[in-house]
Amino acid sequence: MNSNLQCEELKDSGITNVPGFKAAGVYCGVKKNGKDLAIIYSESDTAAAAVFTKNLVKAAPVILCQKYFQNPVRAVVINSGNANACMGEQGLKDAFEMGEFTAGSLDLKPEQVLVCSTGVIGMPLPMDKIRDGVSKAAATLSSSRSAGIDAATAILTTDTVTKEAVYRCQTDRGPFHLAGISKGSGMICPNMATMLAFMVTDVRIDRHYLQELFLDAVDASFNLITVDGDTSTNDTALIMANGFAEGIEITPHSPYLDQFKKALNLLCRDLARKVVEDGEGITKVITLTVRGASELKGARTLAMSVLNSPLVKTAFYGEDANWGRILAALGYAGVDFNPDLVDIYIGSLQVASKGGGLNFSEEKAKAILQKRDIDVLVELNCGSAEATAWGTDMSHEYVTINSDYRS
Amino acid sequence: MNSNLQCEELKDSGITNVPGFKAAGVYCGVKKNGKDLAIIYSESDTAAAAVFTKNLVKAAPVILCQKYFQNPVRAVVINSGNANACMGEQGLKDAFEMGEFTAGSLDLKPEQVLVCSTGVIGMPLPMDKIRDGVSKAAATLSSSRSAGIDAATAILTTDTVTKEAVYRCQTDRGPFHLAGISKGSGMICPNMATMLAFMVTDVRIDRHYLQELFLDAVDASFNLITVDGDTSTNDTALIMANGFAEGIEITPHSPYLDQFKKALNLLCRDLARKVVEDGEGITKVITLTVRGASELKGARTLAMSVLNSPLVKTAFYGEDANWGRILAALGYAGVDFNPDLVDIYIGSLQVASKGGGLNFSEEKAKAILQKRDIDVLVELNCGSAEATAWGTDMSHEYVTINSDYRS
Repeated sequence: MNSNLQCEELKDSGITNVPGFKAAGVYCGVKKNGKDLAIIYSESDTAAAAVFTKNLVKAAPVILCQKYFQNPVRAVVINSGNANACMGEQGLKDAFEMGEFTAGSLDLKPEQVLVCSTGVIGMPLPMDKIRDGVSKAAATLSSSRSAGIDAATAILTTDTVTKEAVYRCQTDRGPFHLAGISKGSGMICPNMATMLAFMVTDVRIDRHYLQELFLDAVDASFNLITVDGDTSTNDTALIMANGFAEGIEITPHSPYLDQFKKALNLLCRDLARKVVEDGEGITKVITLTVRGASELKGARTLAMSVLNSPLVKTAFYGEDANWGRILAALGYAGVDFNPDLVDIYIGSLQVASKGGGLNFSEEKAKAILQKRDIDVLVELNCGSAEATAWGTDMSHEYVTINSDYRS
Repeated sequence: MNSNLQCEELKDSGITNVPGFKAAGVYCGVKKNGKDLAIIYSESDTAAAAVFTKNLVKAAPVILCQKYFQNPVRAVVINSGNANACMGEQGLKDAFEMGEFTAGSLDLKPEQVLVCSTGVIGMPLPMDKIRDGVSKAAATLSSSRSAGIDAATAILTTDTVTKEAVYRCQTDRGPFHLAGISKGSGMICPNMATMLAFMVTDVRIDRHYLQELFLDAVDASFNLITVDGDTSTNDTALIMANGFAEGIEITPHSPYLDQFKKALNLLCRDLARKVVEDGEGITKVITLTVRGASELKGARTLAMSVLNSPLVKTAFYGEDANWGRILAALGYAGVDFNPDLVDIYIGSLQVASKGGGLNFSEEKAKAILQKRDIDVLVELNCGSAEATAWGTDMSHEYVTINSDYRS
């Protein structure tokens, strides 16, 4: 940890470590096995900020969230196992009913409850089961550690581990917290490639300003991860601030602004990276940095172009230092740069210089590529902008899992 | 064949069936096995038109072609096994020397000779072998059928079959011809994903007008095929017109214009589709039509977005009628349409209506999806533009081949 930040990551902690937030996760039968419905609840009104899938095809709950997230949100209800996507009028009706039923169970107004779904596309939401699950979850809301774990578990689809992160920042007025959970199927989800992330904090902050800071943090984290380049119909990242940390308000002139921004960025990066890291079928996690770009947006586009290339991904799977594919993927990204200035490093080993290959040691390359975590650096030598993005290899297992039948 | 077109496809024919063109294909050792150097030669000056890779990283021979293709081109020399890409100054020097040596062998000016290379990236071109091959090829140029096959063979990398197509059009002044060869590795080429296509015709045509017609034909064919969405550093499509068909000149007011355009479009589609069809590891060829779009460009972008989606491609590999993935891939294409109006058909079976799934027969779907050739129709119901594109599934074999070590 950076000591200037005066923030520390708390291990074995979750969203219920943030004062004023409760959670629950239960089984109600939408999935065949395992918890499949979660509620995250705030004891007071929150300022919420959110980003949603840019896919033109939006699932019904996304439409509900877009309508309500600027309200003083009090709760989010999430089911896994069914995405409630591509279901037309019935889908919208079901999403709103799910929200209303949750509001009724928690004595809230319907417009204070957000709804998220993840799972199979094109199947009707089993509303009887959902109502049953909401009742159970509402009755078991708690600020205990296990309630946080239950919620982190209930939002998963075929993820293999829960994804939680918590930061506590010390100030002269006491601590404030930022915490979150995420789910993402990595390469492992046939119809359930949705990325969901829910974050909570106890600072006080205006929702417009929170939205501004959140967008920046999401652009540098969740928007820079890729498994297969497919954008889901349900992707949602949400943060709620309840103001329970007395006297700590985040404004453009707050003494705590830098701490908050850094912790928010770390939280988003942690939760995003955990999505990439979790995936049966993935054998490598690639951390790719594009340096020396003329502007940030271009650096990000170039990084994502490389990490989305099937030829690059299969080369990493084969532990092949195939820098030519990296250069080619940079070249078709639609961003202007000079190929004759590009240097490429795999781990600490330089493999290309000024756009051409070097006589590097294949043995050293192999030793680096055999590891699970691989750093790649692309130095464009044409500016000072820099971006880091996270991706994976593409394995046989990816094809196996994604060619499985829907059921 | 459409009888109005008065053009027929000639079977078992190639580029040497077009009067005034000769060809040769020889082995010179750039590849381990098999013919690896071809020359296509015109007995007189030609009007040439060409399109090149849009990749910012362009191989040296592409840079040479861009410099010379507007000249009265007389010959193209092509080697396979080495792409002469990412080789800096040395690469450019080698490409120009390869052209000059060919010009010398054929008694032409260097600026009348185009050079193409395809194969591994980042390795120096073995110039001794190239010179040897050029000498052999120049000495064996012929208009025989076997010379045409030799050239079609020598441009291949790991393609499994040669790709040739010939059209003969009857007119009141006798016939004219359009013929071509192409190579493309489909899913099968680690470092050699280059698409090359060489076409010849005996009509007379101004090169600017030929370029205009050629761009239209390429946009509707080579630019609408995809295997993995990776754009090579060497992609080139070229056409040369030598005017040997006396009295047949193609102008905007020529009585033969429609025939020529239709035959050119058929030729490009044939050669492009043959690239998609050839590929170890491919188990399906998908012909996707997007209908009812508000404009042509959008229809094409939508079609390519679906065919480039790894989730769609693996679903086809798994013979799964996963229309939700198709709808999702349409949604993130960046083209405006109304998801609630979309109908989707797999073969003759409608699987989605107005953006939602139908209760279709999984048995019927399976029967359609078990075939190698699968037609998919997306009806957007928001306009009259239409585009057809061609793609493939993504198989275990794709991963195996592309994760192989470079050597």
